[in-house]
Amino acid sequence: MIHDVARIGHAELLTPSPEESLRFFVDVLGMEEEAREGQSVYLRGWGEWARYNLKLTEAPSAGVGHVALRAWSEEALERRAAAVEATGLGRGWIDGDVGHGRAYRFVDPDDHVFELYYESERYSPPPELEPSWRNQPQRYTGRGCCVKRLDHVNLLAADVRASRTFAQDVLGYRLYERIELDDGTETGAWLSLTIAAHELIYVADHAGARGRLHHLAFWVDTREECLRAADVFVDSGVEIEAAPSKHGVAQGFFLYGFEPGGNRIEVTTGGYFVYDPDHEPITWTAAERARGQYWGVQTIESFHTYGTPPL
Amino acid sequence: MIHDVARIGHAELLTPSPEESLRFFVDVLGMEEEAREGQSVYLRGWGEWARYNLKLTEAPSAGVGHVALRAWSEEALERRAAAVEATGLGRGWIDGDVGHGRAYRFVDPDDHVFELYYESERYSPPPELEPSWRNQPQRYTGRGCCVKRLDHVNLLAADVRASRTFAQDVLGYRLYERIELDDGTETGAWLSLTIAAHELIYVADHAGARGRLHHLAFWVDTREECLRAADVFVDSGVEIEAAPSKHGVAQGFFLYGFEPGGNRIEVTTGGYFVYDPDHEPITWTAAERARGQYWGVQTIESFHTYGTPPL
Amino acid sequence: MIHDVARIGHAELLTPSPEESLRFFVDVLGMEEEAREGQSVYLRGWGEWARYNLKLTEAPSAGVGHVALRAWSEEALERRAAAVEATGLGRGWIDGDVGHGRAYRFVDPDDHVFELYYESERYSPPPELEPSWRNQPQRYTGRGCCVKRLDHVNLLAADVRASRTFAQDVLGYRLYERIELDDGTETGAWLSLTIAAHELIYVADHAGARGRLHHLAFWVDTREECLRAADVFVDSGVEIEAAPSKHGVAQGFFLYGFEPGGNRIEVTTGGYFVYDPDHEPITWTAAERARGQYWGVQTIESFHTYGTPPL
Amino acid sequence: MIHDVARIGHAELLTPSPEESLRFFVDVLGMEEEAREGQSVYLRGWGEWARYNLKLTEAPSAGVGHVALRAWSEEALERRAAAVEATGLGRGWIDGDVGHGRAYRFVDPDDHVFELYYESERYSPPPELEPSWRNQPQRYTGRGCCVKRLDHVNLLAADVRASRTFAQDVLGYRLYERIELDDGTETGAWLSLTIAAHELIYVADHAGARGRLHHLAFWVDTREECLRAADVFVDSGVEIEAAPSKHGVAQGFFLYGFEPGGNRIEVTTGGYFVYDPDHEPITWTAAERARGQYWGVQTIESFHTYGTPPL
Repeated sequence: MIHDVARIGHAELLTPSPEESLRFFVDVLGMEEEAREGQSVYLRGWGEWARYNLKLTEAPSAGVGHVALRAWSEEALERRAAAVEATGLGRGWIDGDVGHGRAYRFVDPDDHVFELYYESERYSPPPELEPSWRNQPQRYTGRGCCVKRLDHVNLLAADVRASRTFAQDVLGYRLYERIELDDGTETGAWLSLTIAAHELIYVADHAGARGRLHHLAFWVDTREECLRAADVFVDSGVEIEAAPSKHGVAQGFFLYGFEPGGNRIEVTTGGYFVYDPDHEPITWTAAERARGQYWGVQTIESFHTYGTPPL
Repeated sequence: MIHDVARIGHAELLTPSPEESLRFFVDVLGMEEEAREGQSVYLRGWGEWARYNLKLTEAPSAGVGHVALRAWSEEALERRAAAVEATGLGRGWIDGDVGHGRAYRFVDPDDHVFELYYESERYSPPPELEPSWRNQPQRYTGRGCCVKRLDHVNLLAADVRASRTFAQDVLGYRLYERIELDDGTETGAWLSLTIAAHELIYVADHAGARGRLHHLAFWVDTREECLRAADVFVDSGVEIEAAPSKHGVAQGFFLYGFEPGGNRIEVTTGGYFVYDPDHEPITWTAAERARGQYWGVQTIESFHTYGTPPL
Repeated sequence: MIHDVARIGHAELLTPSPEESLRFFVDVLGMEEEAREGQSVYLRGWGEWARYNLKLTEAPSAGVGHVALRAWSEEALERRAAAVEATGLGRGWIDGDVGHGRAYRFVDPDDHVFELYYESERYSPPPELEPSWRNQPQRYTGRGCCVKRLDHVNLLAADVRASRTFAQDVLGYRLYERIELDDGTETGAWLSLTIAAHELIYVADHAGARGRLHHLAFWVDTREECLRAADVFVDSGVEIEAAPSKHGVAQGFFLYGFEPGGNRIEVTTGGYFVYDPDHEPITWTAAERARGQYWGVQTIESFHTYGTPPL
Repeated sequence: MIHDVARIGHAELLTPSPEESLRFFVDVLGMEEEAREGQSVYLRGWGEWARYNLKLTEAPSAGVGHVALRAWSEEALERRAAAVEATGLGRGWIDGDVGHGRAYRFVDPDDHVFELYYESERYSPPPELEPSWRNQPQRYTGRGCCVKRLDHVNLLAADVRASRTFAQDVLGYRLYERIELDDGTETGAWLSLTIAAHELIYVADHAGARGRLHHLAFWVDTREECLRAADVFVDSGVEIEAAPSKHGVAQGFFLYGFEPGGNRIEVTTGGYFVYDPDHEPITWTAAERARGQYWGVQTIESFHTYGTPPL
């Protein structure tokens, strides 16, 4: 068991419509702007202790810029950087970014860019965002969906198995659920660094492309907030791809829509916790997945075909 | 059975801190400003088909200006005006107000001012507040507590029984629950024009004063929104008088706090519906009420002693 | 405005699988058996003040036996019986049934059987079902979905308009929403006797058959109970037709499944209230309905084609 | 950072009223009986992958028998046993119990008995409890409060600081929140092995007694289930100590009541997750704690004075 990586600290989302995307994350999802630098705006949810969760960057097309993982310590960072380097997927150290120190940059076997860092600034709220209780990093503003933090990242991969085993063997992720077709192809893998049912997901890119994003998911504390988020989406003109329901795999509660840049965004809560060290990953067959979601909702077709950048 | 009065159309709330009160109703409760006239701002919840629910008026002290009842028709209005006039409590016709036609003004036996009208303008949203679905009068903005509409009015009365029987006999209210002390004093009465468990409540003014307000209650659709409203209150600096819980009487779910003008405000949902014509009012004894609220929460002392205007 | 009919007191459901249907209503929906007589079992939800809501009757095929309406008074009963008789749809007086007195039997223009009664016995719980609070008719048992009461009845009709206008003109229902195709055909009508958004619904029977049932809906107080009911359905082997979501028309929250006799059953909550006497019915076009439900869920095909008895 | 202990596998609760206590856990909390041995019944929640969470044992007085911790591996078990032994608090190896292998028995500095084990049997449901989805260990029965699993254990301690530092230094718990009076006395400590805000809590035993229990907490997935559990408690005659509300410390949502044996039981959900390795524990002063719970509810006096066994 490797205990060197603690969490996904933030993700960088690329958008060709930076102004509209920013309005979506601030007005609809209810995030706060924490910093700006170059073509990027750094955004946070009210429950995040680091400065931000999301780096929103103007780019010619939508997609994920990079996923930033935080190590448990400087030593853990060094150990993982060395382990990645040994696989040939390392890209070297960078000086850091807003809010965090030097980072080791690498790609997963599917060419998604990752960064691994340890040093991180703790969020200090301005007066108007000071919370009433000190065990909360920021005031709950109640604006829009008012998401708490980034929850998980779902990446499309030409070869799910390769990226999944890399995440397990090199980064220390635990595997909780997976889908395997009758021919042995792995089409989905749900991975986590903690008791949470998923933090990093790989699903098959049916177009066979590499490095694409399926979605970023933002956490709310209750299913009712997901239902309410759907009302906010409807009346804010946000396109809903999949209305609130409960996933079969991992049992999370979901709402899917598209931000103005074209990226798929989930508002999520629920799922289960894995407390046992010897938890056996659940492997689903294609026949089982044909059953759809937990309450029988059939998975919408675009869920299997659309990713960013679009092809 | 009298079927002449349909609903409480709106209530007028008096505030010595008009700017701060307005900010509370707009930013914290999530209402919209629909009109201004003289010292008054007219405010609405997103689910109201009439133009407004709340008339917020600057005044030397807090309290209720008037409660406006809507009749079922012009004929019903005439009938009720005549019935009230016969009691000697009538004050005569006025020309109307923003959004509604002529009204008959009167007082209840405790000197609370009421108005009865029929003609009413239907709300027409500006473009930025247009809803996505036509069976909804306004966009759900998701701002703050985002209350749907005014739900009920709770008035303090020196003589609960007198005002309660007036509401029944002259206005056509139905009585669903009441509290009667061992000495026969009536200290609370829950009245409704519809299947909803309460729309107009009288509770004893222990100071023996007349014409005071206990609270105005604003509706949200779910208990989760009441819980969320409490979070919004806490981080907006709104004083909570009673944290979310379930009432014993009428079983409504509540959150009580104070708006900056000093008036007590409830965010409410739930309760039960009364479908049967021969529903027998529940009468509670003092001993039973000593049990507190539905889950055993003891009623906070200020709930029995504080009203507006303060004494 | 006619104010003679107060509510749907109960509905009679026909089942060819009486034992399995009974187990569904008791174990899965969480209702109580209140009486048995002949081929019928009388069942109640915990929040009903009358003795029962549902008469479950063994029959060769599924469907609705009759819908029982309660009048506001004996005089109201007489008035409505006379009004129905004048239409030629009356079938005459019967002696009554378990828990209620004499009733006037008639059919709507689509041949669904109705009964209208006034005298009704109030529920008296056995010791093991006594509630803790006297403003509640029965203990909340927490078993299965634990539905509170029958909420509404949805009937298939060959001619929606004919039955809808009968319900309005003869019974005094108010019309809140309807669907009208471009050719003028009315394919759905949502009617109510109260502020609740619907109590009686007619939708087009695409098979052109008469007297069939679309579904019976049972009330729970929260959306979370609908979500939970779906979990109960899944693990009880109940077939879910439509997973929990929010209706476009009337905005109620729903879960649809089939009881073992083949009848469609809804677990429902939410919707809106209509307080204004001059509320204009919303008329939806076919184009608008193509949008699906409130959050974009497409209506499942069987919803338009399946009814009981099956054809 | 020590990563040798994974979780609290189960707790043993002592009861002088074994039959009544069993009925409470089965009928009211909705747990399943998994095994019986000697004076003990082994009970489980529907979401637990091990065979049980709770060992309910007949005893002369109420209290906690032992708390059983599961190690990450056999090696981790050996390491922690050795570390405990070095403190002088070890009591030696036992052969195991229903569902798990050999265990190392020890006490914390306050004389609460703990066991540490690794080998554990995975739950295999009987046919009537088989779930519909394989990523769930057992059918969701919907009976009573239908708790998912044991969530956390709260122990009274004469010396909170001593037990807290033992849990950190010897067992590897992380400290997320604590209370320190002005005189430096530590009166509460919230500890966790995972991202969950608390799994083991120590609070001051004002009587100065040792080895007592404050409460066991059982998890439900939503706040609505806590509210519903309170309804179940009320109508099942369970004494509620504290109605549902949100804690200030750790922000969990709670309902407290007493099982028939006299032990305090919590139904809980919510709280926050701690993802950062360098999360600074929050230290509360007495002045801050005087504020009560998150929404201002004052902590009930018995919460500070009552524990089991009673004195």
